This record gives sequence, C-alpha cells and structure tokens, in this order.
Amino acid sequence: MKSHTKYLVFHTRKRREYINITNEIERELEISGIQEGLAFISAMHITAGVYINDAENGFISDLDEMLESIAPFGKNYNHHRTGEDNGDAHLKSILTHNQVILPVTKRRLDLGPWQQIYYAEFDGRRSKRLIIKIIGE
Amino acid sequence: MKSHTKYLVFHTRKRREYINITNEIERELEISGIQEGLAFISAMHITAGVYINDAENGFISDLDEMLESIAPFGKNYNHHRTGEDNGDAHLKSILTHNQVILPVTKRRLDLGPWQQIYYAEFDGRRSKRLIIKIIGE
Amino acid sequence: MKSHTKYLVFHTRKRREYINITNEIERELEISGIQEGLAFISAMHITAGVYINDAENGFISDLDEMLESIAPFGKNYNHHRTGEDNGDAHLKSILTHNQVILPVTKRRLDLGPWQQIYYAEFDGRRSKRLIIKIIGE
Repeated sequence: MKSHTKYLVFHTRKRREYINITNEIERELEISGIQEGLAFISAMHITAGVYINDAENGFISDLDEMLESIAPFGKNYNHHRTGEDNGDAHLKSILTHNQVILPVTKRRLDLGPWQQIYYAEFDGRRSKRLIIKIIGE
Repeated sequence: MKSHTKYLVFHTRKRREYINITNEIERELEISGIQEGLAFISAMHITAGVYINDAENGFISDLDEMLESIAPFGKNYNHHRTGEDNGDAHLKSILTHNQVILPVTKRRLDLGPWQQIYYAEFDGRRSKRLIIKIIGE
Repeated sequence: MKSHTKYLVFHTRKRREYINITNEIERELEISGIQEGLAFISAMHITAGVYINDAENGFISDLDEMLESIAPFGKNYNHHRTGEDNGDAHLKSILTHNQVILPVTKRRLDLGPWQQIYYAEFDGRRSKRLIIKIIGE
C-alpha cells in the first residue's frame, strides 16, 4: 500500500469563503503515483467544512444563505461564554461535514461531471490547515 | 491491496426517491472477494445523497419532510438564474451528505442490525450514477 | 495492508449524551501498530452520530439546541406509527452524520489542535455499539 500526504494552508480575507480545491487534489494525486485507491480530504480545524458540489456562484450563495438561516453569525451562542465569537462556524462545520473521500481509478479522481471539491471557510482571516491523504497502489 | 469498482445507474420515475441499495453493495462485496477493508459508496451527481438509516417508510417520509422544510423545492434559489430548477436538490445533497464508508470484516459488511444504505434521489427522472469502490485484502 | 477492528459499547444514562472518544481511538491505533493509513469510526445504530468538533460544553449545548430546533424530540413523526418514539434521533443522526475518517501519519492520529472525536447518543439508556476499523501499514 502506498500513501501520500499533503497539507494545504488557507488564509482568507473574508470571514466566510468557499474555495474550489479540485485542482490541488488532482495535482497531489499525480505526484503520488497512486492508480487505485481512495483520497481523503479533511479540514484540520473545527470551524471549516469540506464538501462536494457545484462550482456555480448561485449555488454557493444558496448554501451560505441556508447555513446562515440555521446557524446565523452574531447569535448569542453558549460557546461565546469562552470569549469566542465563532459559535456559528462550529455549527456550520457540522452541517456541511468537514471531510470527503474521493475514489481514485486508473490514476484519476473518479468523479461525476459536475462534482467539484470545496473548502468552506466559516471563520477565516487566519491560517487554517487542510490534509490530503491518498492511499492505494 | 485489492480493489473492486462498480457503477450503478438510477433512473427514477419521481423527482425524489429513496432507494435501498444494501443488497447491491453486498453483491459487489461478494464478487470482490475482499475479506477485510472498507467499502466506499458515493453518488456521482451533486443533486443526490447517500446515507445509512432505517428501511422504514415512516422514517423516509420524516426525512423528506425535514429536507423540504429546510430546502424546499420550488423556492426561488440563486442557482436558478442559470436556468436550472433544482437548487433544492443541491442543498438536500449537502444536508444528507453524498457518500458513506462501510466496514468490511470477514467478507461481510460489518453493519449494525438496522443499518441500511440508501441512495437518495433529489432530482430524478434522468440517469444518474453511483460508484462503489471496495479496497482491502 | 494491516487492519485492526474494535467495537465499543455505550450505555448512557440520559436519552441524549455527547461523549468524547478520542482517547479510545488513540489507544486502538497504538494497539494496531499501524503507521500510515486511515481510521474509520462509525456508529452501528441509526439513532446516533459521530462527528469531529470542540471539547467545549457551550458548543455541545449549541449543537444540541440546533438539532432540537430542526428535529425536536416529542414531535409526532410518521416513524412513530411503528410504535417507536425516536423519530427525532433518526433525523439527528442524518444531520450530524454517523461516521468519520481520521488520517494516521507516523503512528499518530493526524488531527488539528482542536479536533476531538465525539459519539453523539440521541436515543440512549440501552446498549449501543460503535466500530473502529484502522487500515494501513
């Protein structure tokens, strides 16, 4: 079994941003030389998400609106008693989930035609890490 | 490391359907001959989900009602500016998640007594693909 | 490829509890001797969740409040026609998701500084199982 690990760092200008990372993952897969297996992608922070969906700005704003309607920024969360102001970001991370697996077949990410991988930053403006780990043969 | 890949195609009659795919996965596991490892199951479209839960019609209608209450069909989504009418289906895919991993132990899916695997179609009436990839030994 | 499997059993006193299982997973990783790979953690019941987030009581109560606001206990769910009273727990399991993957690098769980793994019990006061399966080399 082969394994390849890479860390990406994001430092967004805005509190919330949605960043397409599909190309970065494809590059790591090429470096890994793995032909068959699984690529695991996860945020390493608890105020960010990773999901698979459309590279379409209308959808991205729909997603942001849905997350805000369920877990709005600025609400008086219990978590804020610690001095933090990012209670919404923790809940948004739960709702989107913070990790995905991508299948690798014949050296390629085996995705459908519209599947793009996104890093969803919910509490940005500081450095946050993401891990890519590809295993297979 | 062994690997086995299979694609399923769904073409539902209704816009939204919830389809139990546990037997299909068990069949692929048997074909693979893998005894220990992980089975990865993912929708290859961004308007469908995959989840593990109960094969009980009441629960399925509860799930559909919950998803409709958060991301109703027919709402005027930003995504619809592209000409699409399936903004709700993209959001429902985020909420249910579109993939699961199943553990494989001694040639069997190592599931609890009530765990069934479902393909959730949120924008059907056309052909949609799902990937099963089992890795292990 | 090496593989290590362990089952944990929970029997909570309360209907809903959120239990940090990070130490148990680290212990199984040490027993496994696996240096590089993936650790899969999943509830084996359909009324429980597994997620990665903060070991902070304020956040945990925020999460519980969010789940209750979307899928409240005591509502008259369709699922209850079967005689069950845990329709909310099935929906909460969908919302949190019931499984996570953890990367293993150099014999350690390769997590960010605040990432803790939780078992979320939504219908407790009886024995429920969770599976840990670590694969790699």
